[in-house]
Amino acid sequence: MKAVVLGSGGWGTALSMVLRDNGHETWLWSHHPDKAAQMAAERENPLLKGVRLPEELQITGDLNCLEEADMVVCAAPSFAVRETGRKIAPYLRPESVLVSVSKGIERDTNLRMSEILRQETHNVCQVVSLSGPSHAEEVAIQMPTGCVAACPDRTAARFVQDAFMNDYFRVYTSYDIVGVELAAAMKNVVALSCGICAGLGFQDNTKALLMTRAMAELTRLGEQLGGTRRTFGGLAGMGDLIVTCTSMHSRNNRAGILIGQGKAVQEAMEEVGAVVEGYYAAESIHQLAEREGVEMPICRCTYEVLYEGKHVRDVVSELMTRAKKDELLETAWL
Amino acid sequence: MKAVVLGSGGWGTALSMVLRDNGHETWLWSHHPDKAAQMAAERENPLLKGVRLPEELQITGDLNCLEEADMVVCAAPSFAVRETGRKIAPYLRPESVLVSVSKGIERDTNLRMSEILRQETHNVCQVVSLSGPSHAEEVAIQMPTGCVAACPDRTAARFVQDAFMNDYFRVYTSYDIVGVELAAAMKNVVALSCGICAGLGFQDNTKALLMTRAMAELTRLGEQLGGTRRTFGGLAGMGDLIVTCTSMHSRNNRAGILIGQGKAVQEAMEEVGAVVEGYYAAESIHQLAEREGVEMPICRCTYEVLYEGKHVRDVVSELMTRAKKDELLETAWL
Repeated sequence: MKAVVLGSGGWGTALSMVLRDNGHETWLWSHHPDKAAQMAAERENPLLKGVRLPEELQITGDLNCLEEADMVVCAAPSFAVRETGRKIAPYLRPESVLVSVSKGIERDTNLRMSEILRQETHNVCQVVSLSGPSHAEEVAIQMPTGCVAACPDRTAARFVQDAFMNDYFRVYTSYDIVGVELAAAMKNVVALSCGICAGLGFQDNTKALLMTRAMAELTRLGEQLGGTRRTFGGLAGMGDLIVTCTSMHSRNNRAGILIGQGKAVQEAMEEVGAVVEGYYAAESIHQLAEREGVEMPICRCTYEVLYEGKHVRDVVSELMTRAKKDELLETAWL
Repeated sequence: MKAVVLGSGGWGTALSMVLRDNGHETWLWSHHPDKAAQMAAERENPLLKGVRLPEELQITGDLNCLEEADMVVCAAPSFAVRETGRKIAPYLRPESVLVSVSKGIERDTNLRMSEILRQETHNVCQVVSLSGPSHAEEVAIQMPTGCVAACPDRTAARFVQDAFMNDYFRVYTSYDIVGVELAAAMKNVVALSCGICAGLGFQDNTKALLMTRAMAELTRLGEQLGGTRRTFGGLAGMGDLIVTCTSMHSRNNRAGILIGQGKAVQEAMEEVGAVVEGYYAAESIHQLAEREGVEMPICRCTYEVLYEGKHVRDVVSELMTRAKKDELLETAWL
């Protein structure tokens, strides 16, 4: 099988190594031809220091590598997914499988990554979303990792499962691409709010409370948007949230800590120095929650802190002193 | 309202402080009269160093403090719950509310804590289970914390919610006492297996995979035993699991790390030096899973490591190379 991974960030590179490990003819394409040339020469990606890229992995900056590809993995940053889809459309055939591994919701349109890819590739082939708790650094050194490959088309989902699965990379299938993509995108807001909470000096009890109740909110919204509840408790939801909220690798977490410590939002984002996905996800969630009429107190408070200058201390007491609730019934017993 | 907390461990003491803070006449009873006298004199519990007990909190070793109590909180260690229930039965009235905060499943009988209390108190009053992600050390210094008060009787659950809730201790009600108690007891096995995983040198991806998939197993068993699926994603389930698995306070986690590093099981438990609840829970879960015919690969492997001398390394590859599965459908697509 011929596989092409588009995007030579840490995650694209790690996934290309898994595919090569599994014996597939694998190409890693970089948006920057000089970066491709450097990686090809040095057999190392500076984002995965100390990890040697296998000799058989082809590294290129030329999109013609897409010709005759059976599987194309889009590992572009979420803001570049639309442009990438447009560029690769001419190379895809009906029997190709396109795999989206980017996490995010498009600004303004609130579309999921696979929806963008379907639009730009005119639905020529199946699009599968691959997601789960997976630091690239760990996959690259073959730490046991699990993901979910989601697509309403079972054959496509199983094709991706077969391509990636091995003894350190376990893949579950799922029909619920809506839930998987929403969970993956939305959980960054929770990571950001967990960071804020840590920055305020709160500890483990508060973080666990926040993670659990925020997931309950995201699940409510996700179901309303057509996702399956159980997906939010699965690898793309709770699993990915755990790995994000407990990691200092997470930019969302780091930005949140700075905000919790009293930094202005823009200042905190500049200090982190890279895209803080949770910041944009907070806005998308806010819009979607309003549109769908879903109650999301934690996400709303996070939005107000990020976009409306609300004080973080006020938010905590507001959340803790809300009306008495039941955990399973959405409203209090009357 | 008069409240009595039975058991002066860290958790019982922290809960008595919450109740006293909320203005209730509150008594803390210790199994050891001399320990009670010492705490009463020094206004400190050695298990919560540096935390001053409020002057108005009554501390005693005399069970007569139970007379006229409106709420009785049983915070005994799980192995002592039956004996405690027997001792307090004569003091309870039909209008009393008994609150169980112990976590565990009784050996041999596989009964939940509230079932034991109901047996020993002859169902004289309602029993509510209070559970969630709550290190006593953090509640004692008023860190924002959330728990769930579960009882099929709504009035009793709301009575407990009203008694405990304040601006740093948020209480949700739930009808699902079965799910809450099972989740609280069973999650210790996952903490133990996460420890093993860390001891083997695995990192965040593996831990998140293990936590997510183990919760899927526990949820399957819990539903079979009459619990509600969503409870396992709630505060007593996922919430408590997060706080346990990410804390070095957890004895289950510590014991697991030693086993993962190659220590024999008994040796590891001796080194931890206190009751490792997950060790016993593993046996109960194993028995229940066999009886109910529920597939639980992670819990089964943990059981085999703990009780049958299976090598931890073998277990990892066994779990990672299982048949290909779907995340939402319980069996693979055929």
